[in-house]
Amino acid sequence: MTSIKIGILGLGRIGQIHLKNLATSIKGVEVVAAMNPSEEGQSFAKDLHIPIVTGNADDVFNNTEIDAVAICSPSDTHEDYIKRAANAGKAIFCEKPLDLSLEKVKEILAVVLANNTPLMVAFNQRFDTNFAQIKSLVTEGKVGELRTIKITSRDPAPPPIDYIKSSGGLFLDMTIHDFDMARYIANSEVDEVYARGHNLVDSAIGEAGDIDTGFVLLTFENGTTAIIENSRQAAYGYDQRLEVFGSKGMAQADNNFKDTHQLLDVNGVHSSRPLDFFMDRYIDSYLYEMNGFVNALNQKKAPPVTGEDGLKATAIALAANKSMKENRPVKLVEILGD
Amino acid sequence: MTSIKIGILGLGRIGQIHLKNLATSIKGVEVVAAMNPSEEGQSFAKDLHIPIVTGNADDVFNNTEIDAVAICSPSDTHEDYIKRAANAGKAIFCEKPLDLSLEKVKEILAVVLANNTPLMVAFNQRFDTNFAQIKSLVTEGKVGELRTIKITSRDPAPPPIDYIKSSGGLFLDMTIHDFDMARYIANSEVDEVYARGHNLVDSAIGEAGDIDTGFVLLTFENGTTAIIENSRQAAYGYDQRLEVFGSKGMAQADNNFKDTHQLLDVNGVHSSRPLDFFMDRYIDSYLYEMNGFVNALNQKKAPPVTGEDGLKATAIALAANKSMKENRPVKLVEILGD
Amino acid sequence: MTSIKIGILGLGRIGQIHLKNLATSIKGVEVVAAMNPSEEGQSFAKDLHIPIVTGNADDVFNNTEIDAVAICSPSDTHEDYIKRAANAGKAIFCEKPLDLSLEKVKEILAVVLANNTPLMVAFNQRFDTNFAQIKSLVTEGKVGELRTIKITSRDPAPPPIDYIKSSGGLFLDMTIHDFDMARYIANSEVDEVYARGHNLVDSAIGEAGDIDTGFVLLTFENGTTAIIENSRQAAYGYDQRLEVFGSKGMAQADNNFKDTHQLLDVNGVHSSRPLDFFMDRYIDSYLYEMNGFVNALNQKKAPPVTGEDGLKATAIALAANKSMKENRPVKLVEILGD
Amino acid sequence: MTSIKIGILGLGRIGQIHLKNLATSIKGVEVVAAMNPSEEGQSFAKDLHIPIVTGNADDVFNNTEIDAVAICSPSDTHEDYIKRAANAGKAIFCEKPLDLSLEKVKEILAVVLANNTPLMVAFNQRFDTNFAQIKSLVTEGKVGELRTIKITSRDPAPPPIDYIKSSGGLFLDMTIHDFDMARYIANSEVDEVYARGHNLVDSAIGEAGDIDTGFVLLTFENGTTAIIENSRQAAYGYDQRLEVFGSKGMAQADNNFKDTHQLLDVNGVHSSRPLDFFMDRYIDSYLYEMNGFVNALNQKKAPPVTGEDGLKATAIALAANKSMKENRPVKLVEILGD
Repeated sequence: MTSIKIGILGLGRIGQIHLKNLATSIKGVEVVAAMNPSEEGQSFAKDLHIPIVTGNADDVFNNTEIDAVAICSPSDTHEDYIKRAANAGKAIFCEKPLDLSLEKVKEILAVVLANNTPLMVAFNQRFDTNFAQIKSLVTEGKVGELRTIKITSRDPAPPPIDYIKSSGGLFLDMTIHDFDMARYIANSEVDEVYARGHNLVDSAIGEAGDIDTGFVLLTFENGTTAIIENSRQAAYGYDQRLEVFGSKGMAQADNNFKDTHQLLDVNGVHSSRPLDFFMDRYIDSYLYEMNGFVNALNQKKAPPVTGEDGLKATAIALAANKSMKENRPVKLVEILGD
Repeated sequence: MTSIKIGILGLGRIGQIHLKNLATSIKGVEVVAAMNPSEEGQSFAKDLHIPIVTGNADDVFNNTEIDAVAICSPSDTHEDYIKRAANAGKAIFCEKPLDLSLEKVKEILAVVLANNTPLMVAFNQRFDTNFAQIKSLVTEGKVGELRTIKITSRDPAPPPIDYIKSSGGLFLDMTIHDFDMARYIANSEVDEVYARGHNLVDSAIGEAGDIDTGFVLLTFENGTTAIIENSRQAAYGYDQRLEVFGSKGMAQADNNFKDTHQLLDVNGVHSSRPLDFFMDRYIDSYLYEMNGFVNALNQKKAPPVTGEDGLKATAIALAANKSMKENRPVKLVEILGD
Repeated sequence: MTSIKIGILGLGRIGQIHLKNLATSIKGVEVVAAMNPSEEGQSFAKDLHIPIVTGNADDVFNNTEIDAVAICSPSDTHEDYIKRAANAGKAIFCEKPLDLSLEKVKEILAVVLANNTPLMVAFNQRFDTNFAQIKSLVTEGKVGELRTIKITSRDPAPPPIDYIKSSGGLFLDMTIHDFDMARYIANSEVDEVYARGHNLVDSAIGEAGDIDTGFVLLTFENGTTAIIENSRQAAYGYDQRLEVFGSKGMAQADNNFKDTHQLLDVNGVHSSRPLDFFMDRYIDSYLYEMNGFVNALNQKKAPPVTGEDGLKATAIALAANKSMKENRPVKLVEILGD
Repeated sequence: MTSIKIGILGLGRIGQIHLKNLATSIKGVEVVAAMNPSEEGQSFAKDLHIPIVTGNADDVFNNTEIDAVAICSPSDTHEDYIKRAANAGKAIFCEKPLDLSLEKVKEILAVVLANNTPLMVAFNQRFDTNFAQIKSLVTEGKVGELRTIKITSRDPAPPPIDYIKSSGGLFLDMTIHDFDMARYIANSEVDEVYARGHNLVDSAIGEAGDIDTGFVLLTFENGTTAIIENSRQAAYGYDQRLEVFGSKGMAQADNNFKDTHQLLDVNGVHSSRPLDFFMDRYIDSYLYEMNGFVNALNQKKAPPVTGEDGLKATAIALAANKSMKENRPVKLVEILGD
């Protein structure tokens, strides 16, 4: 069996995770090239004995040996890189978002479609062990006909204000994972969105024009309702829970905790906090996600998350923004058109 | 110390619970009379050696020895009994609802106010050990500034269709407990209500003009948001949970389960279901609730739940009905007037 | 249907629980008489409208209307009361222990046998909801062939030294419940006992000739091993757990906790302590236990716990004492004889 | 800063874990050589770009550039490799057991001592996150004066009979981890051992002269008692729990489970099994353990687990064997001499 030959673009925090997984843990793939503008990322790749380590993206796109690219560079490079990869006939793994503008996303997908390029958008939470188990239970019918999906997503602390300013806002930056998860679990398309947002955590976030506390009600075409709650700050750490309720029962995924100890003393029972942040909680999901991409290519199947998934999540986020602004339910068709 | 002398009206399921608690477990009270139209309730009272057992409410209202009444009779008697008790100078404990009509509730409260009568509306869930603990934690500041209140309330099975037809609908019949709980925890008044409802459990409920699945978003004046989810049916039993999230942390109250066993076998870990229904889950709350009423009277304090609490919960339910019907957020002032 | 007519002897803490259950919650029984030397217990019975309230045990034993007695008086009265009840043809419910001396217990059982008297020894923990569930799982074969039984029993605080002096020692006073539970779960007889004891909690207990920390290994005839651990003091409250391990799996019964809340804050997760002591933890077991006695009598069946059970638990305790003293495994036959 | 240069001997299952950790995740170390007799292990090392990959141990011991060795080869090579490493002036990380014979262990330690060689015995469970947390709580005094340590260790399935025959028996092969853990937590030396063993899982194990079910009571010099329970088979998976009880409270470490989901349906609550076996449960512990070794060398400190620890655990296991055989408590001094 020949292996997929891959090049990776961008070796920041998330790029390094993907590169290490590709180079040391995933079967059926060979990392041929790694591109990063700065020295730091490059030396990480060199330590892993990657053959081509470069600061120039052309060295990846022009390398005809390379079958696929993993795009882990800043969001504003995604459009350009995806188009170049598609036009160069390379399969694409791309970190979210494809783009913050729905028009750009549509344009990207048109190029991808025209080239018949396999494209996977990195909604890694689908590959989290807990959430994947919930999806399996739903698919197996253990929950029955779905009625309610509840997603709680709270970050331990807000990102820097500069990040927030260019993030597209809470719904496009943070809730977008939850929109994808809700669609994934509901196995249906969103009909209507009602959203509320507040600035309760840090007034600087409000001054930057964003919210830090969000509530979204999604009504799906199949009658399921999803309730999403987000916060940019939780004193007790990273809170990532999912609950699905249906005619036959309820499935819940709790957080992962630092350890399993319990201390019982005169004041009660005490145990450890949830894992700190996404680098801890979701570390395995990045491996399973990339494994899914590599396996799909090797088996000539469609990637497990598609460009369409990226488009839909973006559209729901934009509907949430409109709903919040106008304080009324917004039909998704208002955003996507007919 | 002299004891409060009480008469009880209505000896159905809930009346019998209150009577047994009053007669055998609560200090500082003496049950002088018990009224019930039918033999069955009367014989329950006789077995408990209640001095006056009658089928005529006059025997209670005209008995000058009686200081207080517990009204556990059908809802359509509440208005009459409250007014008679208030006019007879007797303190009142009344099962919810005071009435399904906001006008009637206002009228009732006017009579109560004119007579300066202590009136307690029986929102027993406030006295549930789990929820009371959450309230304490919030009051002590352990959760910090409140951001989100989440209430999940799912019944094991829908009531008979005939009950549903005269219930006032899901929001007035079932969610009203959650509206009261949200107000109690938020320690603030509702500003705006957004509600959605669906008929997913049993089409007969929809044909009766009601919903069986409800979602309500309450925005409080202090910036807290409450999310309430209701279902008339849950395959796994009675589901009554509360979660409060604030700047310093999160407090959750889980269900009570039938027992604490766990069985680990080749298929995983298995344990028992939640307690079956309100008679199991809330049985202690009825004792604590009535104890609170009796203590308040003996200490000449205001009862721990007031007529105002009954009025507000009703108004929120009516706003939810309006919001659902018009699919838009409704300000509470639209219902209550200025 | 006629009801069993019962007289109760002894209205201390445990007697009052039984009397209230018999008088207000158990069907098929009528409390005819209640005996207690002191005023306080008597007034408790009068408040419950018991027809005969007396300070003289003769009024119970000589009352031919009475079918059964519940003996809740101090341990040193048990021998006398049981014999009188047996000779008067009254069925017997007796608090543990029958007696601290094996010879006396054998003598008591001989009288009971000669009179063909139904006798139930009050090992209430068998009726605890959690432990009963474990027993059911074992009986249903869910655990498979038993290998290990683990019992943890720790009191919140030691009893008064005077109590300890007349208690017969830790194994006869406290562990005896665990010996019975182990036999009940194992469904086999003990072959060998190895016990260790230490004085770690309070030196006054050691000075009184007793231990406060005990470890016992029981080897059953069917190959099952039970491990029992006791302490007279646990800072976090009353700890009562049971674990059963077999060829098909493991069943565990955890403690009952004061409530189900969890508080997640910057320091971790915090929840409430176990219920305080046996009056809280086992309160329901007393009802189920007495119900079992009354039902057995009404259905002319053997009581669910027998005098033989009392004898065996006592013998195991004596073997544990011998093992601890001689620091060697002791065969039960050394105590019971062949 | 210069890095420790290490050579690894043995690239079976555990050797590969250590090699991958050393080569890709641990700072301050450089893997210079990897030795394995077979091709399979060698190709694993080559994929990780290890400079010297060999089938000859001399290439490691004679390489003067190498500061330390990790001995992961079969147990019967340990004595030889440790002595050669010690004599070559190389620090030693050695998988357990040093040897099954107490005399050999003493001899090994004498050579190590004579050379003043840092030696770490790989009791990896000390580095498990859950158990390390319990150790911390004990050290911080959160549990108070220790009274009881309870260790439950059950394997999912027995090893092959051939393995069992050369394993030294349950206590030397499996319980030895628990003996070390008990010593580590108790922070005291064992005074007396009482052990029982049974053949309940597979009669072939009994025919091979071994037990598959073990119970050990350790009495420590400081008055703490440890209770250890082992089984070679648990239907529900790998069961690794620790409980510590003291004057101020109790600390427990539960298993790690496959995921955090719960399914509530008409039959109850269902969740996933514990992680399958030591490769899953303890995978992180191997990283932390090796990290501890490397850090100790770099900081010129004693390794966190010593040869003395290996000796003591072996002696306790031998005392347990003697106790089981003679069915009596055995003083450790009977094994170790004065």
